[in-house]
Amino acid sequence: MATILTLAGDGIGPEIMTQAIDVLKAVNEKFSLDLTLESGLIGGVAIDSTGEPLPDETLARARAADAVLLGAVGGPKWDTIERSKRPERGLLKIRGELGLFANLRVAKLYPQLANASSIKPEIISGLDLLIVRELTGGIYFGEPRGIRTLENGEQQGYNTMVYSTSEIQRIGKVAFELAKTRAQAAGTAAKVCSVDKANVLEVTELWKQTMIQMQQAEYNDVALSHMYADNACMQLIKDPKQFDVMVTGNMFGDILSDEAAMLTGSIGMLPSASLDESGKGMYEPCHGSAPDIAGQDKANPLATILSVAMMLRYTFKQEEAAQAIEQAVSDVLDDGLRTLDILDSSEAGLKQVGCQEMGQAVLAKL
Amino acid sequence: MATILTLAGDGIGPEIMTQAIDVLKAVNEKFSLDLTLESGLIGGVAIDSTGEPLPDETLARARAADAVLLGAVGGPKWDTIERSKRPERGLLKIRGELGLFANLRVAKLYPQLANASSIKPEIISGLDLLIVRELTGGIYFGEPRGIRTLENGEQQGYNTMVYSTSEIQRIGKVAFELAKTRAQAAGTAAKVCSVDKANVLEVTELWKQTMIQMQQAEYNDVALSHMYADNACMQLIKDPKQFDVMVTGNMFGDILSDEAAMLTGSIGMLPSASLDESGKGMYEPCHGSAPDIAGQDKANPLATILSVAMMLRYTFKQEEAAQAIEQAVSDVLDDGLRTLDILDSSEAGLKQVGCQEMGQAVLAKL
Ligand SMILES: CC(C)[C@H](C(=O)O)[C@@H](O)C(=O)O
Ligand SMILES: CC(C)[C@H](C(=O)O)[C@@H](O)C(=O)O
Repeated sequence: MATILTLAGDGIGPEIMTQAIDVLKAVNEKFSLDLTLESGLIGGVAIDSTGEPLPDETLARARAADAVLLGAVGGPKWDTIERSKRPERGLLKIRGELGLFANLRVAKLYPQLANASSIKPEIISGLDLLIVRELTGGIYFGEPRGIRTLENGEQQGYNTMVYSTSEIQRIGKVAFELAKTRAQAAGTAAKVCSVDKANVLEVTELWKQTMIQMQQAEYNDVALSHMYADNACMQLIKDPKQFDVMVTGNMFGDILSDEAAMLTGSIGMLPSASLDESGKGMYEPCHGSAPDIAGQDKANPLATILSVAMMLRYTFKQEEAAQAIEQAVSDVLDDGLRTLDILDSSEAGLKQVGCQEMGQAVLAKL
Repeated sequence: MATILTLAGDGIGPEIMTQAIDVLKAVNEKFSLDLTLESGLIGGVAIDSTGEPLPDETLARARAADAVLLGAVGGPKWDTIERSKRPERGLLKIRGELGLFANLRVAKLYPQLANASSIKPEIISGLDLLIVRELTGGIYFGEPRGIRTLENGEQQGYNTMVYSTSEIQRIGKVAFELAKTRAQAAGTAAKVCSVDKANVLEVTELWKQTMIQMQQAEYNDVALSHMYADNACMQLIKDPKQFDVMVTGNMFGDILSDEAAMLTGSIGMLPSASLDESGKGMYEPCHGSAPDIAGQDKANPLATILSVAMMLRYTFKQEEAAQAIEQAVSDVLDDGLRTLDILDSSEAGLKQVGCQEMGQAVLAKL
C-alpha cells in the first residue's frame, strides 16, 4: 500500500485536481495499485486558513506520503502580503524540504495540436524534448540574500548563485541516465546538452567542468554538448529538434523549460515531475494557477492528468498504467475534444469542452 | 571634430568592420560630419599580440574617443586559456570601465525577410521592440565570485546578483525616456514592461519596487507592467507584439534580447548600442564572431552597418545620416540581395552575395 498526498492549491487548482483524482482512482482500481489518497493544504488556501503557505502539517504528511500531486499555487489575493508568506514560498519550501532536486519537464508536441503553436509546423513536428532542471539549489536557495540599506542611504538587493560539485553530479546523473533510457526506447544515440553561462559566471564554469568529468568517467556512451543560456534560448526557437535532453541549473531551467513548453503551443498539456534521490516525487502541471479563469470550468485538466501518468511511471514503476492514461488523453484529442486553451477555431470537427467534460472523457476512455 | 575607435576583433569581425568603415566614411563625407577614425585591438587578436583581451592602450584610446564601433570577439582558439584572459573578458571589461550601463537592442522585423523566421508570419509581422538591458551590474559584475574548495574537499562555485537603487533608477530612466520618444514617433501610448523574478529573488524585488516608484513619481504618462522572466520568455514566443520597450537586468537581458533577436529570424541584421551616462557609446552587432565562416566572405555586414546608424543617432545626434544608412540597407534588401544567413531559397528573385558585395551595394545606395 502506498499513499499519495494531493494538494489542489489555488485558482484552477481544485478543478483540475478533481479530474485528476477521478482518473487516479480509476487506474488504481483497474490496475489494482493499492494506492490511498489523502488531501492537504498549500499556497493561498493554506495561508487563508493557517497563515502559512506550507503548514507544518502539510509538510509532515508530504514527508510521510510516497508521492505528492500538486495543482497550482498563487493568485492576486496574496500578492501583497509579506514576501516570506506568499504562496510561491510554500512551493519553494516543499521542494527544498523534500529534497526534490530533479525537475523533469517534457516539451512534447501532440500531433493533434500542431497548429496551436506560434512556431512553424516543420520546426516543431515530432518535438519531444526533456529538460532536466536542478530544483533545490542555485540562486533560488543561495545565501546570503536580501535587501539592505547601504551607508549612503540607498538600498541594495542581493542573491547568491551557488552550486557544489556534488549537487551538480547528482543532477548530471539524472540527465545522463534519462538520456540513455530515452535513447534506448527511441533506438537513437543518447545525447545531453548542458546549458551554462561559463563565459561569465564562475558557478556555471564549475557546472560545465563537472559535466565534462562525469561524461569522461562514467558516461562516454552519451554525447555531451554545452551551450550558453542565451544561445540555448535562441536555438530552442530556431531548431528545437536538435535537442533531446537538456540539463541546467534552477534559474536557467525555469526560463528554458517555460520557453520549451511554449514552443508546443499548449502549456496546458505539459506535466512535470520533481524527484528526490530515492525516486519519491512531487508531480504537477507546468502551467500556473490561472486565477482569471478559476471556478469557471474552463481550465485544461490534461497536464494534471498526465502528471498522474508521470507519477505512476517514475515513483510507482507502473509503466502500463501510465501508458493507459497517456493513451486515453491521446484518444480524447483524436475525438476532437478541446478546452479553450488548445482550441484552434480554424479547424473543423472540434468540440469545445469544459474542464469537467474533458476529465470525464478521459475517464471514459480508461 | 569627433573620434571613433573601431575594434574589429575576431572571427568575422574584420570583414564586417571593413564594410562598416566604408559606409561610415561615405556618410562622413556626404553629411560633412568631421569624424576621425582610429583602430585598435580587442579580444583574441589582442591576446595574441599583447597577452591581454583588453590592452591598456585600447582602453585609453576608447576613453578618449567619442564612440567605439566593435565587430565581435572570441573563438575556439582562445577557449582553453585561463578564464581571466579570455576574449569575452575584454568585452566585459570595456563595458565596465567605460560605464556603458545601458544596452539597447532592437528586435525589428524587416518585411523583406519575414520568411526567415521560425515563427509564423502573423505573429511577428511589423515587430519592432526594444530591449533595454542593464549592462554593467547584476550577476555579471557582482562580488564575491569564484570557485572555492569546501571543508569536505568538494568544490563550490558562486556568483552574486546585486543591484542598488541608483543603478536601477538610471537604467529605468533610459527605458522610460526611450518609451516616450518611441511612442511620440509612432503616435502611440508609451509603455514599458519591466522583467524580473520578484517572486523568488530579493534583488529583483528591489528592481520591481524601484520601477514602480519611478513610474509613480516621474513617469505616470508611461504605462508600466511587470513580468516574471520565465513568463516573458514564453510571451515573446506567443505574442511578441504585446511589447514595445522591455527593461531588465544584465542576465535576463542577455537571454531575452537574444530570444527577441531570433524571433526576427535574422540576427545578422540587428545592431546594438551600449551607452554611458553622457550618451557616449559603444556600438556592435548583436551576433557573435562566427569563427566557422570567418575569412570566407560569407558574413552579413548589415548589423554592423546598422550599428553605425545607431551611433550617428545616439552619440552624434545625426538623425538624417542615420536614416540614410537605414534606407540604403532597406533598398539593397528590396533589390533582393541576401547573404547566406538571410537567404530564403524558396523565394524567387533573390541574389546570394558575399560580405563584401553586400557592403558595397549599401555604399552604392548612399
Ligand atoms: C512559481 C515560481 C516560484 C516557480 C519557479 O520559479 O520555480 C515556477 O515558475 C515554476 O517554474 O515552477
Ligand atoms: C560574450 C558574452 C560575454 C556577452 C554577454 O553575455 O553579455 C554576449 O552574450 C552579449 O550578449 O553581448
